[in-house]
Amino acid sequence: MSSALEARLEALERHVRELEDRLAIYQLVATYGPGVDTCTKEVVAGLWTEDGTYSASGAGTFEGAAGVAALVDSPSHQGYVERGCGHVLSLPHVTVAGDRAVATGYSQVCVRDGDHWEVRRASANRWELVRTPEGWRVQNRSNHVLDGSEASRDLLRRGVVEAG
Amino acid sequence: MSSALEARLEALERHVRELEDRLAIYQLVATYGPGVDTCTKEVVAGLWTEDGTYSASGAGTFEGAAGVAALVDSPSHQGYVERGCGHVLSLPHVTVAGDRAVATGYSQVCVRDGDHWEVRRASANRWELVRTPEGWRVQNRSNHVLDGSEASRDLLRRGVVEAG
Amino acid sequence: MSSALEARLEALERHVRELEDRLAIYQLVATYGPGVDTCTKEVVAGLWTEDGTYSASGAGTFEGAAGVAALVDSPSHQGYVERGCGHVLSLPHVTVAGDRAVATGYSQVCVRDGDHWEVRRASANRWELVRTPEGWRVQNRSNHVLDGSEASRDLLRRGVVEAG
Repeated sequence: MSSALEARLEALERHVRELEDRLAIYQLVATYGPGVDTCTKEVVAGLWTEDGTYSASGAGTFEGAAGVAALVDSPSHQGYVERGCGHVLSLPHVTVAGDRAVATGYSQVCVRDGDHWEVRRASANRWELVRTPEGWRVQNRSNHVLDGSEASRDLLRRGVVEAG
Repeated sequence: MSSALEARLEALERHVRELEDRLAIYQLVATYGPGVDTCTKEVVAGLWTEDGTYSASGAGTFEGAAGVAALVDSPSHQGYVERGCGHVLSLPHVTVAGDRAVATGYSQVCVRDGDHWEVRRASANRWELVRTPEGWRVQNRSNHVLDGSEASRDLLRRGVVEAG
Repeated sequence: MSSALEARLEALERHVRELEDRLAIYQLVATYGPGVDTCTKEVVAGLWTEDGTYSASGAGTFEGAAGVAALVDSPSHQGYVERGCGHVLSLPHVTVAGDRAVATGYSQVCVRDGDHWEVRRASANRWELVRTPEGWRVQNRSNHVLDGSEASRDLLRRGVVEAG
C-alpha cells in the first residue's frame, strides 16, 4: 500500500472513531432518562463503571453502578414516577481526550401537576466518562440544581472552558 | 486491491453508514417540531411513510402521512399555535437494525401563558422507522403522556431494553 | 491507485466531512447555554464571527462577537443568573450547503421560582453559520419568542422548508 493511501485511510479511521465516540456519548446521555423514568435498574447501572459515582446536590453521592441505579427506589423518585415524570436531558457539549471524555449539559425533571407538567428540578450536569472494552461508561456524574450558586456555574463552566 | 485494504475500506464504509443513519434519525426527529408548530403539512407528511401512523394517548390514531399532517388542523393544535407554542423534542435514544430503527425520547409542548410558557403536554415517544429509497421515514410513532401509567413507562422501557 | 479505489476514498472523505460538520454545529449550539449561564464572555464570543450578529425579539440586535457576549451583562440576564437559570437549547435541525449552514431549533430559558423552575422565555432560533478556518461560527442568530406571531413561525418554517 502506498504511504499516501495509508495516510488517507488512517486519517479516515481516526475521524470515524472520533465521530463514533461523540455519538456513543450522546446515546449514553439519552439512555439515562428512559432508564430512571421506568425504574429499569439494569439499564441505569449499565451506564456507569462498576466503581462509578453520581453526586447530586441535595441528594448526596451514590457509589457504584448498583448504588446509582438504586436511586430509583428513593421515596422522592418513586413519588415522581407515580405522578408521571420525565428526566429530559439536553443535547450535551462533549469533549473527548483519548480514553476520557466530558459531557456537559442540562437536565429538566418534568413532573405532572394536574393538567400540566412542572419543572421540579433543573440542573447542570457534568458527566466524566471513560472508555472501557464495553464502550463509554460514567466514572462520575456531578449534578447541581440551577440555584444561582457559584457551584452550579462552576460545573457548567469547566466543561466548556476546558475545551479550549 | 489487497484483501486487507478491501477489509479496511468496507469497515469504514459500514461505520460511516451507521453514523449517517443515526444523524438522519436525529434530523428527522428535529424536523417534527418546526413542522407542526408552523402548520407546514408537507414537512410533517414528508416524515412519515405513505401508510405510516401516529398514535397519541388521548388524541387517537392518525393514519397515513396526510392523515398525520392533518393533525395541525385540530382545534386544540390551532389553539396552541395561536397562543404561541413549541413542540420541543429531546435528543433521542436510537437503535438501528438493518432497515429498521427505533428512536425513543421525550416531547414537551410549551405553550405561552402570559409572561411565561407552560408545559401543557410532556410525553414519551417511540418512533418506529424504516429505511426507504428516500431516506428514513416513520412507520409508526407512539406517544403517551407522562401520566404515571404503566403504558407510558412501557413505551420508554422497550426502547432502551431492546437495545441490549 | 485505481480509479475505483480513489472514488471510494473520496466518497468516504466527503461523507465523513459532512458528518463532522453536523456534529460541530451540534457542539456549537450546545456550547451557548453553558456560556451565557456562566457569563463566560470569551466562550460566547468565540461562537460568533467577529462581525456576527444576534437579533432577539424584544431585546434588539447585538453586533459583533464582543457585542453579543456583552448581553450577559444586561440587568435581565444578571437577574436570571442570580436566581438560577438554564438556557436549554433543543437538538437542532441542520442543513449544510458548502461553507454555509443553518441550524433551526428551540430554546427554553428555565428560571428558578422557589421550589420549581419556570420557562420564562421559549423561542424559535435560526442560526446562520459560516465555515471559517477555525471552524463553524455564527454569522447571524435570529431568536423570536413563541408568541403566536407569524414572525416566530416564519423563522422556524424557513429552516425546514428550505431544506427541501
